[in-house]
Amino acid sequence: MVQPRGTQLDTTKTMAELAGNLLVAQSGGPTSVINASVAGVITEAGKHECIEEIYGGLNGILGILNEEFCDLNDEKVRTIESLKYSPAAALGTCRYKIDFKNKPEQAAQDMDRLFEVFQAHNIRYFFYLGGNDSQDTSHKIHDEAVKRGYDLRVIGVPKTIDNDLPHTDSCPGYGSVIKHNAITVMEVGMDVGSMATDDGSCCIIEVMGRAAGWIAAGTVLAKRGNPANPPHLILLPEIQYNVDKVLTKVKETVDTYKYCVMVVGEGVKDEKGEEIGADKERLDAFGHPVLAGAAEKIKEYIQGKLKTKTRTVLLGYAQRAAAHDASLTDVTNALACGEAAVRAAVEGQSGFMVKIIREVQPDGAIKWSTGLQPLADIANVEHFIPRDWISEDGFLPNEKFVEYALPLIQGEVDTPMEGGLPKFTVLEKSPVEKKLPARA
Amino acid sequence: MVQPRGTQLDTTKTMAELAGNLLVAQSGGPTSVINASVAGVITEAGKHECIEEIYGGLNGILGILNEEFCDLNDEKVRTIESLKYSPAAALGTCRYKIDFKNKPEQAAQDMDRLFEVFQAHNIRYFFYLGGNDSQDTSHKIHDEAVKRGYDLRVIGVPKTIDNDLPHTDSCPGYGSVIKHNAITVMEVGMDVGSMATDDGSCCIIEVMGRAAGWIAAGTVLAKRGNPANPPHLILLPEIQYNVDKVLTKVKETVDTYKYCVMVVGEGVKDEKGEEIGADKERLDAFGHPVLAGAAEKIKEYIQGKLKTKTRTVLLGYAQRAAAHDASLTDVTNALACGEAAVRAAVEGQSGFMVKIIREVQPDGAIKWSTGLQPLADIANVEHFIPRDWISEDGFLPNEKFVEYALPLIQGEVDTPMEGGLPKFTVLEKSPVEKKLPARA
Repeated sequence: MVQPRGTQLDTTKTMAELAGNLLVAQSGGPTSVINASVAGVITEAGKHECIEEIYGGLNGILGILNEEFCDLNDEKVRTIESLKYSPAAALGTCRYKIDFKNKPEQAAQDMDRLFEVFQAHNIRYFFYLGGNDSQDTSHKIHDEAVKRGYDLRVIGVPKTIDNDLPHTDSCPGYGSVIKHNAITVMEVGMDVGSMATDDGSCCIIEVMGRAAGWIAAGTVLAKRGNPANPPHLILLPEIQYNVDKVLTKVKETVDTYKYCVMVVGEGVKDEKGEEIGADKERLDAFGHPVLAGAAEKIKEYIQGKLKTKTRTVLLGYAQRAAAHDASLTDVTNALACGEAAVRAAVEGQSGFMVKIIREVQPDGAIKWSTGLQPLADIANVEHFIPRDWISEDGFLPNEKFVEYALPLIQGEVDTPMEGGLPKFTVLEKSPVEKKLPARA
Repeated sequence: MVQPRGTQLDTTKTMAELAGNLLVAQSGGPTSVINASVAGVITEAGKHECIEEIYGGLNGILGILNEEFCDLNDEKVRTIESLKYSPAAALGTCRYKIDFKNKPEQAAQDMDRLFEVFQAHNIRYFFYLGGNDSQDTSHKIHDEAVKRGYDLRVIGVPKTIDNDLPHTDSCPGYGSVIKHNAITVMEVGMDVGSMATDDGSCCIIEVMGRAAGWIAAGTVLAKRGNPANPPHLILLPEIQYNVDKVLTKVKETVDTYKYCVMVVGEGVKDEKGEEIGADKERLDAFGHPVLAGAAEKIKEYIQGKLKTKTRTVLLGYAQRAAAHDASLTDVTNALACGEAAVRAAVEGQSGFMVKIIREVQPDGAIKWSTGLQPLADIANVEHFIPRDWISEDGFLPNEKFVEYALPLIQGEVDTPMEGGLPKFTVLEKSPVEKKLPARA
């Protein structure tokens, strides 16, 4: 029986009504805890008899189109356990998008192929981990299943360090990235502060976040409530900055503390709303515009106008891969999302994304749980930092933001070490036999 | 009684022969373990009655010239203990150099002032933590004390992430920086590998090291003996690279593994011996040459010539400040160096640097100890990676390097956490009363 569009929870289903195989796949940029959600899917799936085979789709939707599955039943229990603490996408991921808008013909072909693959392997449970684009893909697959009358339960599992999915308290991956980045800002801040002489110095740390500033904002936790502590300024992509005002603020900070630590989101914008790091007038040897990066560009201004010695740090992929600095709260929530997705599907739901719910108890402790939100409400909606969580001058998130973010970084994982380095897990990925001719 | 130039150990001294105060100061760029050496100095000093007051000089030689001392006896025992695991220079540091070569008049004035300060505070034990420049400063102070007939025991304590001091097995700070960087390369490598599609992708991680490539080389440990593991290429400042050959190697790697992770030392050079990152032809808005950085410049080549999508990571100060990833071996050796410096001075030595000695036991275990090396042998001598520790093509350190470096990253510190973030120590720094007029 086919599910309705998924705007209402249907609790009339009985368990085990739909027997078949499960497919889980990962999409988009990895996070420190994306594998914890997969571990949640696998362990929960093992509890339900209606789920026969547990397959992993390799490299996201791209691998599914190519009928590249691995058999997750073949993985050792210990592997699944340590998957919770291993970075990167254990199943592989992709940025491939079924693009109905710009490539409708290709998209229609892809959709046909997907359902051919689902049918060939009797896939009845499909879980796709990802951010906005991936939730959109899940939504389309759900709709298509309804249209085709193919019995399929589709549940999206949230995953993005960007924390920009709506309707969920937070996104798995976010707590860990800001924990790692806040630790880094603390450490770099102490370093720069201890080098501070009368000349003054500045350090700019560039973090991810093209449109939403959640990642940059999260480093405010490194201040631990003390205005003297770094970071002294945080520039968010949500705000348009007058560069001269930024320089004035830097100068004031250096005058006061002898140093200034600034965090910038990569997509930070100037007064005209243009990305500061996208310096299109400067060409490289191949005639391409050089994307200097926001931190490098602001460094040029500070050194040029204020004559203050400035160094930069560009955390790049290191921030989202730093599993050894993961937040235990984040790991636990990511795991819970994977488990909840399977439970919802077994209970007969489809067309939803799992969301994280926070309940503040009378004693101030937080009770985390999960819920479901229709994919139609999620797809392609970006969630930004509320303006009233940011100081009036736009230079720092305020106590409302701190109240929101601090619980997300609580607790540490105990990364097993071997020979001085983390011992991370890699899946065996024993391949599932293909049943179809190669994709056209 | 004044010490000889310090080329021979003098074991005829009896303890407590020279009563007076102790001064310890930190110099140059901080490391994760520079404070462990200070903790070693303080705890060892507490055991010797000949040492009366234990002073810290603030901001290196600059603070000493300004007579800015703090009383380390006033610090809590627990603070000293947790100092071992806290990043940055707890006493503050500086890059100020007594420059006899270029500014002989200023240098002579500085030296007069230093001895005025020493005398005013009855400083008889002086410990200076630093790299090449700082050992040179210690050497000059020792010589000057001899010349002036001022009874002073000067012992240099090695400190530099660059690992370029001669005569010591390794430099405190180095093991921790390569441990952090190797963890980062492992994590980033897994991330990039899991995103690898048929198009291929590349990630370049730039690490510190202007002249010597020890830091870049250390990331080879992330391979854990498996050629398929990142990093696939490491470019060292010691080698001059033909950029086309680097690109060929990148292409081969992407063809084989679908991705390539490269580590570059910031000072990596082209065939002409010029720094690849110092692109002097490109000017910023203020007419200054833009130092694009080695990673950014190589990225331009890869994207321009190979059309392979490339991202960069610039670890900057984050690598040397990452105390939460410190190597326990490194912390232990740093602590031992501080203790050994005090013991040597109390025993009557002066004009030496403490060095780390490695003895490989019959069972393969390593016994670490310390020794003394005349400062005259150390000052301004840079120690590079032996050529036969690097593969013939210059693209990777070999098993000789791994055998050397692997023991340095063993063991982890147990960073205390509070509210999801490390709990680091900051000294009280209760000021010592000044006795002199301000510096001219």
